Amino acid sequence: MPSFENIPPKKVGILGATGTVGQRFILLLSKHPFFVVHALGASARSAGKPYALAAKWKQAVPIPQNVQNIVVKECKSKEFEDCDVVFSGLDADVAGDIEMEFLKHDIAVFSNAKNYRRDPIVPLIVPTVNTSHYDIIAHQRQHHNLRKGFIVTNANCSTTGLVVPLKALQDKYGPAEAIMVTTMQAISGAGYPGVPSLDILDNVVPHIGGEEEKMEWEVLKILGDVAHEGSAFSLLSNTKVSASCNRVPVIDGHLESVSIKFNKDTCPNNRIPSIEEVYETLSAYTCEAQSLNCPSAPENAIVVTREADRPQPRLDRENEKGQAVTVGRVRPCNIFDYKFTLLVHNTVLGAAGSSVLNAEVAVARGLL
Amino acid sequence: MPSFENIPPKKVGILGATGTVGQRFILLLSKHPFFVVHALGASARSAGKPYALAAKWKQAVPIPQNVQNIVVKECKSKEFEDCDVVFSGLDADVAGDIEMEFLKHDIAVFSNAKNYRRDPIVPLIVPTVNTSHYDIIAHQRQHHNLRKGFIVTNANCSTTGLVVPLKALQDKYGPAEAIMVTTMQAISGAGYPGVPSLDILDNVVPHIGGEEEKMEWEVLKILGDVAHEGSAFSLLSNTKVSASCNRVPVIDGHLESVSIKFNKDTCPNNRIPSIEEVYETLSAYTCEAQSLNCPSAPENAIVVTREADRPQPRLDRENEKGQAVTVGRVRPCNIFDYKFTLLVHNTVLGAAGSSVLNAEVAVARGLL
Amino acid sequence: MPSFENIPPKKVGILGATGTVGQRFILLLSKHPFFVVHALGASARSAGKPYALAAKWKQAVPIPQNVQNIVVKECKSKEFEDCDVVFSGLDADVAGDIEMEFLKHDIAVFSNAKNYRRDPIVPLIVPTVNTSHYDIIAHQRQHHNLRKGFIVTNANCSTTGLVVPLKALQDKYGPAEAIMVTTMQAISGAGYPGVPSLDILDNVVPHIGGEEEKMEWEVLKILGDVAHEGSAFSLLSNTKVSASCNRVPVIDGHLESVSIKFNKDTCPNNRIPSIEEVYETLSAYTCEAQSLNCPSAPENAIVVTREADRPQPRLDRENEKGQAVTVGRVRPCNIFDYKFTLLVHNTVLGAAGSSVLNAEVAVARGLL
Amino acid sequence: MPSFENIPPKKVGILGATGTVGQRFILLLSKHPFFVVHALGASARSAGKPYALAAKWKQAVPIPQNVQNIVVKECKSKEFEDCDVVFSGLDADVAGDIEMEFLKHDIAVFSNAKNYRRDPIVPLIVPTVNTSHYDIIAHQRQHHNLRKGFIVTNANCSTTGLVVPLKALQDKYGPAEAIMVTTMQAISGAGYPGVPSLDILDNVVPHIGGEEEKMEWEVLKILGDVAHEGSAFSLLSNTKVSASCNRVPVIDGHLESVSIKFNKDTCPNNRIPSIEEVYETLSAYTCEAQSLNCPSAPENAIVVTREADRPQPRLDRENEKGQAVTVGRVRPCNIFDYKFTLLVHNTVLGAAGSSVLNAEVAVARGLL
Repeated sequence: MPSFENIPPKKVGILGATGTVGQRFILLLSKHPFFVVHALGASARSAGKPYALAAKWKQAVPIPQNVQNIVVKECKSKEFEDCDVVFSGLDADVAGDIEMEFLKHDIAVFSNAKNYRRDPIVPLIVPTVNTSHYDIIAHQRQHHNLRKGFIVTNANCSTTGLVVPLKALQDKYGPAEAIMVTTMQAISGAGYPGVPSLDILDNVVPHIGGEEEKMEWEVLKILGDVAHEGSAFSLLSNTKVSASCNRVPVIDGHLESVSIKFNKDTCPNNRIPSIEEVYETLSAYTCEAQSLNCPSAPENAIVVTREADRPQPRLDRENEKGQAVTVGRVRPCNIFDYKFTLLVHNTVLGAAGSSVLNAEVAVARGLL
Repeated sequence: MPSFENIPPKKVGILGATGTVGQRFILLLSKHPFFVVHALGASARSAGKPYALAAKWKQAVPIPQNVQNIVVKECKSKEFEDCDVVFSGLDADVAGDIEMEFLKHDIAVFSNAKNYRRDPIVPLIVPTVNTSHYDIIAHQRQHHNLRKGFIVTNANCSTTGLVVPLKALQDKYGPAEAIMVTTMQAISGAGYPGVPSLDILDNVVPHIGGEEEKMEWEVLKILGDVAHEGSAFSLLSNTKVSASCNRVPVIDGHLESVSIKFNKDTCPNNRIPSIEEVYETLSAYTCEAQSLNCPSAPENAIVVTREADRPQPRLDRENEKGQAVTVGRVRPCNIFDYKFTLLVHNTVLGAAGSSVLNAEVAVARGLL
Repeated sequence: MPSFENIPPKKVGILGATGTVGQRFILLLSKHPFFVVHALGASARSAGKPYALAAKWKQAVPIPQNVQNIVVKECKSKEFEDCDVVFSGLDADVAGDIEMEFLKHDIAVFSNAKNYRRDPIVPLIVPTVNTSHYDIIAHQRQHHNLRKGFIVTNANCSTTGLVVPLKALQDKYGPAEAIMVTTMQAISGAGYPGVPSLDILDNVVPHIGGEEEKMEWEVLKILGDVAHEGSAFSLLSNTKVSASCNRVPVIDGHLESVSIKFNKDTCPNNRIPSIEEVYETLSAYTCEAQSLNCPSAPENAIVVTREADRPQPRLDRENEKGQAVTVGRVRPCNIFDYKFTLLVHNTVLGAAGSSVLNAEVAVARGLL
Repeated sequence: MPSFENIPPKKVGILGATGTVGQRFILLLSKHPFFVVHALGASARSAGKPYALAAKWKQAVPIPQNVQNIVVKECKSKEFEDCDVVFSGLDADVAGDIEMEFLKHDIAVFSNAKNYRRDPIVPLIVPTVNTSHYDIIAHQRQHHNLRKGFIVTNANCSTTGLVVPLKALQDKYGPAEAIMVTTMQAISGAGYPGVPSLDILDNVVPHIGGEEEKMEWEVLKILGDVAHEGSAFSLLSNTKVSASCNRVPVIDGHLESVSIKFNKDTCPNNRIPSIEEVYETLSAYTCEAQSLNCPSAPENAIVVTREADRPQPRLDRENEKGQAVTVGRVRPCNIFDYKFTLLVHNTVLGAAGSSVLNAEVAVARGLL
């Protein structure tokens, strides 16, 4: 087993550092054992200012001391040349060009943006699910003619919550035939200023632009395989996903109501598992990030609750410091096999936390 | 067409008058063209007090002048003998005995409680859906040896929202094969004091006791038929319903995410309708309560919205004074045929409003 | 007493018609007995579009039928020449120039913006308080060389709530010596998109830019007199007002905690009134808009509540259709004389409702 | 300076352990350097059950491992005889008798209940304000004929927030002449189930039973002195406090709008301090618990913020792990001298956190 004990400090750059995802990156990295915040990038409007003045800080803990006076730079690769790795919390409207410019300058980029998730040679990695997709990096480097750079994306926040228990079940019972999911998503997922309070107080908004399409497609890539000798992804082909996405007046934590239909043919003995077996499979699930002892890996990738009215965003989102998915209410479905409810912390595992843990795995795999 | 113009005033009793459903009954009836609040019943603790002192009034409009000084009685039939009709907003733990005592004394009871919804000779009526189920009343009276009394229940608030569009679609395309629904329900559905604020502020509770079972069963009765020459109900037998119920921090208005699979065999020309046809079918739907010109009937039983982010509880719950179901976001489902979102005002059409409109239809049908 | 029965229809223009105050104007005027919405003005971006497309409508009732297809114009006086009166819900950053351009073209303007509130010849009128300030209009017309035009502003929403009970008390006991007030203001006061939800869910923001200064000064003008033969205002000179303003997660309705110190010298018999006398004085208060029978005047300008935990925004904001101020909890203050709590509907009496009622009084006074 | 390094473990009992204050005690003590949770007391209904079954746990972190299986006892002193100290989170309706029974059996009790706060020989201690009041314990023991037992109460949560900055200012400028305060209090202050959600969503409740009276009196005792050679308290006699208390939809954190009038005669050079001096005085304040290096003492008893819109409950309540009071917006008052806004974490420093820190000081003073 590799050890993280003797990792020398690695210089980290953060793109989109003043935004909500950027702020989470700063918090997660401020006490990291070997990643050290070294450079911060934001729009031209912020560039040149100390971070404490450039950012409209909206976190419940203050800006880390060592970050307050870092002078914000523009998001250009030459400003980040001495960084070992760059995390991107950029908005989608600028992330495409900027991240590509960094990649072409041979910089390793971990992106939270959606722009390259569908790129056929860019892995879309949820760190407690499919770190095996790093196997495509050699091919990606070759394709772009890179020595040490690469780009890895993490998934949409709602997708992230969903694929963790799906992966645990798929490992044991094969890919599901059908997944119907309805989300109740927190406002922090929309960034700042994000959702106007007049739209969400005493209200639910049954629409989040592009979210349903993301969930329905990303699941298939994440739960698929690296194929063709590490040069492509094969998506799940016999699994159907249908998502309905809603915004609710919750600060952090996406809750998802899920119905699942197993494929009997791929279940051991062609038998649909019992509820108890489902619970046990979820509880027993472990992933590479855990076996590598990554510092940000959760002790339990899935926290199982047996209480009738859990998980709940306010009570369960901090489980495993936000890096776990909490699953409960496994019960029979009149139409499919089972229904269950899951909760993911959308700004930790669902965003910046994924990138950080992804990068730790990359270190262990010798990619950084 | 019958006319409501010359209906003489009818004396109305309200059981459970101090509770939240009871308060809604009082509001809905306070300006009614022919129902006149005559007697109020509540627990022994409240009996003997003027209503304004007995009730912890929680409505946004004051207690109607003519109700404030009515002295509350105990819920015994002899106290309500001069009432033409009684509405019950009683809690389930007492509704069973009290409503039966009233019935046996030949009083017409419209109940919002769940106790008799599954009784094989008690109709479970959503007024914009299945008033045809009144056809069982003759048999019910015969069975209980009644002259003018009977009991009619209305449905669970979440069921009520669901069956209205389902009925419109069933009339045209036959009973659906499968209905998957996830609800996001308002706190007013739990009564007062109901949901503690610590449980629901910045939170969602993924569990409402008994609610999923109610939805999954009640739909089958409401959308079924009166059979055996008016002596029994035949439930839908080839429709599967699966429900997941959640409580969200919204005051009034249950939102429901629905996926529906039609039965191709019962669709005209064995063809699944297009999205446009679904919208048109929903828009064109009318019901008996409308053709009878009932004073509380909505102009549109279904309000169709084509905006991408509607219906929303705060903006749409007052549509048609709360007696409509608002439906929007009809779109393809990767697994079933279509997904859509609906909204029902849980304390109007979803509770007291159903009973009042049910009673108006009963008047038109000569039952009251 | 004048009568409103035979008023011929008056054509109304609304400036800033797509904003939140503009939307309220449309709702309040859509069923008005003699004001008829005739022209709508907004930014160049909206001009040329039918209102239903130009506005992001955020009200709980739909856009009135007769307004949906009105084509929005730019806010230029020549586009509104055939209007008898113009209501302005413009933002402060543009209201100054636009309203002045209208005024110079001899158009009567009722403005909700702050720009001219401190103008020495523009009246700042709360319709249930100081319609006597219309006495300055003759002078204002003379000064600007106008025949029928003039400009009247209404007050800040928080000021409006405060001055109504203060006026009732001042009429009887003379101007107060000191008024300490802490507000808890609704999010709708900030317009749309206004307050980001991340700022206000599970939170209170103890700051609203410029609000405290507005309250502390506007009270002195509104409760002062027209002086110098109708050519100037004399502000209250011996009253001190101190305000602390907070934003709370409430949709509509500003709540204010007030402490008041009377001036013993101006109280009848030099005696501070008893709590009971204060309650009676508040209950008995009437204003010119009521005696004129203005259609939008509340039956009670002040609704007095004696319940220990009222007024509350959700339960009391609709009192008198939002045109009353509700006052309760009158109790001794250890430092001043009394404390009390008041509630004002910030988007009705606190904004558009003031302008509409002001205009009705202007009609009765022959100014329109 | 005393050291806490060699303190042997002390056995702790918690009364009212299943309630919300009790749960906070468990969390605060679960990782304490020398207090060890040893016994848990609750009502007869809970007694005999393991804690995990007896409590309806509502915290965002799970029940500490070592507490889950402690069997709950009844609140009788003989069940707690081997405890070195007992913390009481009992409700006021039972706290009086139970705490007295413990006291009489010579047990040291730290109570969060209000029952003995006004007792003339029981100190009412806010740990960052008036630990000097421990000087009365010798007299209290003598009076009750105790060897090691005693009773200490902490203050009401709103009082606690107020007295910390007042103490800092009083130390420098003498007791204030007048303090006007309006609170906006979190729902957690009402316990569980506490405030019904229908009362507080989209609402503010301008009344908390008994709270204003508590604040107005407790301040005078806490900021007063121990007199008569340690046998009595002398309350502040020339300070007037007036409080208005409101409940707002916030989970944790009481916000208070304060106006203060200094006594010029007790200010250095008879000069009211400048705003800058007030800020500096607040920033510079330290207390005995800090100089003793108590493990739960905040680094800063007062966190000063200079941002225009702070403190805010959601962003500032966790400052110093909830043991600080955050103060900002110091600005001139038109009536008194200055206004400012403060925030206190009502369930940490405002409740259980006070008791724990009080007990640490008692250990340092050799009382435990």
